[in-house]
Amino acid sequence: MNILIIGGGGVVGRKLASALVDRGHLMGRDITKITLADIADPELKAGSVHITGLACDITDPASVSEAITPETDVIYHLAAVVSAHAEEDFEAGMKINLDGTRNILERCRTLGTAPVVVFTSSIAVYGGDVPDPVGEQSFLNPQTSYGMQKAVGELMVNDYSRKGFVDGRAVRLPTISVRPGKPNRAASGFMSSILREPLNGQEAVCPVGEEFLHYYLSPRLCAENLVRTAEIEAGALGMNRVLQMPGRTWSIRQMIDAMTAVAGPDPARLIRWEKDEALLKIVGGWRFDIRADRALGLGLIADDSFEDNIRYYIEDDRG
Amino acid sequence: MNILIIGGGGVVGRKLASALVDRGHLMGRDITKITLADIADPELKAGSVHITGLACDITDPASVSEAITPETDVIYHLAAVVSAHAEEDFEAGMKINLDGTRNILERCRTLGTAPVVVFTSSIAVYGGDVPDPVGEQSFLNPQTSYGMQKAVGELMVNDYSRKGFVDGRAVRLPTISVRPGKPNRAASGFMSSILREPLNGQEAVCPVGEEFLHYYLSPRLCAENLVRTAEIEAGALGMNRVLQMPGRTWSIRQMIDAMTAVAGPDPARLIRWEKDEALLKIVGGWRFDIRADRALGLGLIADDSFEDNIRYYIEDDRG
Repeated sequence: MNILIIGGGGVVGRKLASALVDRGHLMGRDITKITLADIADPELKAGSVHITGLACDITDPASVSEAITPETDVIYHLAAVVSAHAEEDFEAGMKINLDGTRNILERCRTLGTAPVVVFTSSIAVYGGDVPDPVGEQSFLNPQTSYGMQKAVGELMVNDYSRKGFVDGRAVRLPTISVRPGKPNRAASGFMSSILREPLNGQEAVCPVGEEFLHYYLSPRLCAENLVRTAEIEAGALGMNRVLQMPGRTWSIRQMIDAMTAVAGPDPARLIRWEKDEALLKIVGGWRFDIRADRALGLGLIADDSFEDNIRYYIEDDRG
Repeated sequence: MNILIIGGGGVVGRKLASALVDRGHLMGRDITKITLADIADPELKAGSVHITGLACDITDPASVSEAITPETDVIYHLAAVVSAHAEEDFEAGMKINLDGTRNILERCRTLGTAPVVVFTSSIAVYGGDVPDPVGEQSFLNPQTSYGMQKAVGELMVNDYSRKGFVDGRAVRLPTISVRPGKPNRAASGFMSSILREPLNGQEAVCPVGEEFLHYYLSPRLCAENLVRTAEIEAGALGMNRVLQMPGRTWSIRQMIDAMTAVAGPDPARLIRWEKDEALLKIVGGWRFDIRADRALGLGLIADDSFEDNIRYYIEDDRG
């Protein structure tokens, strides 16, 4: 089993690679090789699995052709320009999120090997005047360019799968929290940093009120769900290849209380509250009343409590 | 008012141009010029309106830049590779239906003039395991590449409008019947030919059973609705620019009965019944239980009866 993770240098890509290495097999076959495209040095304990890094520019079809070979069995496509970035730089979002995804699917089509392709979409596909709750069969009405580009990716994954060019699956990721590492340009960045920084003894700024609700999943279970997504039988997906990855809806207050329950009262004192109206305009349009019934029925999972999210961060990632 | 009709050589494009010439004004301003892109000789009575033809290849950004100028106020984008063609030739569908639409929107974005863009989508965006009835807020789950490409066009029209690059509107056309002229490669071709050919004294083949249901609109009201779509106030469209153009659901039997009621019993005798399983696979997945409540509320209209569709064909098109 030869696995390519495009966007393998990101938080989810690295977690996924680690989970695959720990597991050693996918879809009933031993994993022999994992390629992390977009970083030179994957820095992973490889064990029996051959892990390589590969520079890859998904906006360049030649670079994509180098990454996806006739030997590639499974492709995880996680690479994207994130929400706030795609909103600021429309052209970058179109090139990377839309053309990049298409280049990957096109390479598979011309190869003719019909690999499994797991594409990470986003809850940013929901929006506008569409009634709650939203989920796998809601009208997609994104109110950001990022969400539009992800929705287009879903439609292409579906059609390329229907035509037999790939065995595709698209999963709409909840917001991942607690994300390790440094802040990125995602508008959702604060949803991790207000926990991560205080858990590391540093100050953090919360740009929304404590009543702000959103839909979350831990990185650990996100990686686990990506493994499970590849293993779903194609026939069980029926006439649509898109799943809502399960998460849970929490308020900022509930998340902070969970941090206090796990790590004591000190971290919460490090949060400064400063509303950011520009950011609220973006995240205020995001949905939090989300249902993932189909994905749950197909074996995907959510965290049991936000205490779990805090514990997983401390166990897996805190320096 | 300077109007560009891309795909102006097709049935709907010509009807629309005629309707605009007859009307003489759009959005409160006199129409001074209509350009029909894709044909050299528009063959239209122009009256006071200056009508020109223009060869245009929407897959070529340079050609699109020639067609859309800083003086263009309204763009009707009707050009497409039709359903059966896009299903056979995946690359042609992607190039014309997806890249072509994007080239038009991109030209508007770089021009910075934010013209009104009316994009014709299709009821082929509906499909799969999505419950009836379907309409403006249904999950789009196309089961053809044509439907996928139209759904992507809708998402782009929405986002380019949200960003202020265009003042876009997308309307999902019902199947147009009775279409004048020769059969095209659309899978829906028989839905006109089984009426048009007999009304002209010629044999026609019906590839589906008489109980087959579908959703129809006459060419005359389609053109009228396209005029009305441009005139809807942008603010009334809210957070989504897509409308289901109203039509009505009829069975083949009801359509033939309407023909007999208007034109006597002879035409119906010219229909031969020969089931085509390959074609049924495509059209059998199309939806017919369609609601257009939002469009009706915004002033779009449907035929009163299928007798109207027959009469309009005889009045407007029968040689």
